[in-house]
Amino acid sequence: HGQPIQIVITGEDHQFELDETKLEEILLSPLIQDKKVVVISVAGAFRKGKSFLLDFFLRYMNAKGHPDWLGGDEAPLTGFSWRGGSERETTGILMWSEPFICKIPSGEEVAVLLMDTQGAFDSESTVRDCATVFALSTMLSSVQVFNLTQNIQEDDLQHLQLFTEYGRLALEANDNVSKPFQNLEFLVRDWSFPYEAPYGAAGGRKILERRLQVSDRQHPELQQLRLHIKSCFTSIGSFLMPHPGLGVATNPMFDGKLKDIEKDFKEQLKILVPLLLDDENLVVKEINGCKITCRELVEYFKAYIKIYQGEELPEPKSMLQATAEANNLAAVSSSKSLYQKEMEIICGGDKPFLHPDTLQRDHQRCLEKAMSTFNSTRKMGGPEFSKVYGEQMEKELLEMYDNYKKHNDGKNIFSSAR
Amino acid sequence: HGQPIQIVITGEDHQFELDETKLEEILLSPLIQDKKVVVISVAGAFRKGKSFLLDFFLRYMNAKGHPDWLGGDEAPLTGFSWRGGSERETTGILMWSEPFICKIPSGEEVAVLLMDTQGAFDSESTVRDCATVFALSTMLSSVQVFNLTQNIQEDDLQHLQLFTEYGRLALEANDNVSKPFQNLEFLVRDWSFPYEAPYGAAGGRKILERRLQVSDRQHPELQQLRLHIKSCFTSIGSFLMPHPGLGVATNPMFDGKLKDIEKDFKEQLKILVPLLLDDENLVVKEINGCKITCRELVEYFKAYIKIYQGEELPEPKSMLQATAEANNLAAVSSSKSLYQKEMEIICGGDKPFLHPDTLQRDHQRCLEKAMSTFNSTRKMGGPEFSKVYGEQMEKELLEMYDNYKKHNDGKNIFSSAR
Ligand SMILES: Nc1nc2c(ncn2[C@@H]2O[C@H](COP(=O)(O)OP(=O)(O)O)[C@@H](O)[C@H]2O)c(=O)[nH]1
Ligand SMILES: Nc1nc2c(ncn2[C@@H]2O[C@H](COP(=O)(O)OP(=O)(O)O)[C@@H](O)[C@H]2O)c(=O)[nH]1
Ligand SMILES: [Mg+2]
Ligand SMILES: [Mg+2]
Repeated sequence: HGQPIQIVITGEDHQFELDETKLEEILLSPLIQDKKVVVISVAGAFRKGKSFLLDFFLRYMNAKGHPDWLGGDEAPLTGFSWRGGSERETTGILMWSEPFICKIPSGEEVAVLLMDTQGAFDSESTVRDCATVFALSTMLSSVQVFNLTQNIQEDDLQHLQLFTEYGRLALEANDNVSKPFQNLEFLVRDWSFPYEAPYGAAGGRKILERRLQVSDRQHPELQQLRLHIKSCFTSIGSFLMPHPGLGVATNPMFDGKLKDIEKDFKEQLKILVPLLLDDENLVVKEINGCKITCRELVEYFKAYIKIYQGEELPEPKSMLQATAEANNLAAVSSSKSLYQKEMEIICGGDKPFLHPDTLQRDHQRCLEKAMSTFNSTRKMGGPEFSKVYGEQMEKELLEMYDNYKKHNDGKNIFSSAR
Repeated sequence: HGQPIQIVITGEDHQFELDETKLEEILLSPLIQDKKVVVISVAGAFRKGKSFLLDFFLRYMNAKGHPDWLGGDEAPLTGFSWRGGSERETTGILMWSEPFICKIPSGEEVAVLLMDTQGAFDSESTVRDCATVFALSTMLSSVQVFNLTQNIQEDDLQHLQLFTEYGRLALEANDNVSKPFQNLEFLVRDWSFPYEAPYGAAGGRKILERRLQVSDRQHPELQQLRLHIKSCFTSIGSFLMPHPGLGVATNPMFDGKLKDIEKDFKEQLKILVPLLLDDENLVVKEINGCKITCRELVEYFKAYIKIYQGEELPEPKSMLQATAEANNLAAVSSSKSLYQKEMEIICGGDKPFLHPDTLQRDHQRCLEKAMSTFNSTRKMGGPEFSKVYGEQMEKELLEMYDNYKKHNDGKNIFSSAR
């Protein structure tokens, strides 16, 4: 029943493209185009069992409510392509070709779409690539499953913060009433401390509460991060999954047969999957508080991808690059102010005309002082990185000097007599 | 034999302090103070088996060359405190109280110190806290073991880049000949793809080469990251460790007995530990190309910690915070330039005197244009964050206006006649 379809393509040149034809083939089929849509996405680092999990979602959906949906012991797992190995597999964003039609409690029929995403942090993706895939999939899904391993760490939250901000930036037309995104589910794989917080949703809630707790005694950086994340999603949950067994993780011949998977893992799968996909639990995609149809989703896909293709959004960068940029801009700004302040004292509007040679000498001194202030300010990124900023600053100071010269010339009685 | 001693303390207020007395007790003991020093440190995310590993280092050192150093099947593992659970255990930097005296191939006796560090990315530490612990331990060790799980990811490299840059910044007196730091060992725990790259150093080298490869076809961001890391260390290695078994990871009663650990893990331990700690493989700590003694190390500890206590270094921030800062500074800078350019056209030095009301009107228009340029530039961090920058900019523009007014007044024939 169906296959994975790549709808968002990452080009060699780190540009993203939407395959409109394929997207429309899925979403504009007469059967579903006017139905409300439910979009379940799985995102997170590469090689962490995202596609593997999605294939169980597919089994559940295909079983249409059959209690034995998990399948036979001997059936290999198929669907979204998953595999062992340490290199990336999926790029861009994939959608399952066959939407599932389900009846939600109101009696309405909705279309359920499953989305797989390029794993973040592989060694060919830039920060912007990862942010774009994560942001797009968060904006376009009603449930984003954030797939983590072993724990919820502060750096996971920091990435989430950057990526959601990158999404929020693109949503200019937000109504400021609804939160920008819908449901977020932290899915912790290989949870190792069931004696501290049990597997499943209750344990997840316990850990999540601890991690997202805000208190006055916390450093402001920690508080802001947590408030940011809470302000982004209508609902945030968490689920702790056990390790599926070392065979699953390390055996190259493992093809997903249930008999090779640890019992605990299968038990929790039986809880997790219905929690996300049971008719009762489906979350219809909303944008600005309005439930949307498959047809409308196509338009949002087009609109959002266009924003990320444009040049208008600031670029997400690595920690060092962003810090280096901020450090250099701040140093330029304060060194320029210094130059300006000193020059105003020397040749401001209420100061008398100076001989051009005197002005030139004073300028030279102020320029050198500003340059050396810039150079001696400790900045991340090293001298190579600073050089560009220093040169640009010098150019700007020379322009400012030109302006001062003109003002000074204007004060000259002879020139004003002309 | 000995116990862990906390030498670097993280205060409630995120300030770091050195316990000089305790450090000196260890390093200035008459037995070792004039011996050259070898410092092995283990750093990385919290709850990832760092202390557990260090306890095997201790066993090896205590066994003094005995081939059965790994110990009996029934002996629990003691030393640096390790435990299950998802919350942080170690804070600051710990050193083993007993230095080990070893004879290196030259015949010289050296003192070997083992250092455990606060895990990064727990939910109470800021980016600056993590960067400081990592930077300090990298600056002060001859071998830094960077403890990772499952893979070497791009975000691991990005953290390493930020943290080493934070270290490099503090080393102003670097001779520019030696690289700032010595040996880096990427230790990948729970490696799951032995069929792709075998456990151990050879597999590690293979993965590391792939991850650190630089090519023209890569995005500049990826190239710079890799060049940065290579430029920081004299030598970089990697080692792939197998999973120690689900009992080790999840059993709360596990106390480190060898019989509960997977055979593969023990086999690789027998290779890894001598690779780092055998007399033949010890790396003496060098700073600026000079081998240093325990006594000198104390002075470096004091000097380095002082730098991080000061205000001079730029602060490492989370990705979003750094990007938001850079975005806002860049927007301020271009909006200010805009104001300045327009005002120069209106009332530059070669322009005639304007009636103050006219100037006021023109200023108002330019100010509004600059402010709206600033406000409409897409910036990360949200309006709350931008507000401070916008207000500061307005203040600066008003100062610039004051200067223009003075220049304009100076042009007034009546005022210049006074
Ligand atoms: N440790 C661990 N490995 C898993 C888990 N689920 C799947 N795997 C294995 O992880 C590898 C990568 O799976 P895949 O679904 O392709 O990862 P993706 O890149 O995140 O989509 C495969 O070898 C799976 O057998 C899990 O929960 N824990
Ligand atoms: N998965 C896994 N767990 C480990 C490994 N080594 C130790 N552990 C477990 O990880 C937990 C944390 O160990 P600890 O050494 O205190 O971690 P630290 O915070 O990094 O110092 C304990 O429950 C150990 O039994 C390993 O290589 N892999
Ligand atoms: Mg995948
Ligand atoms: Mg520890």
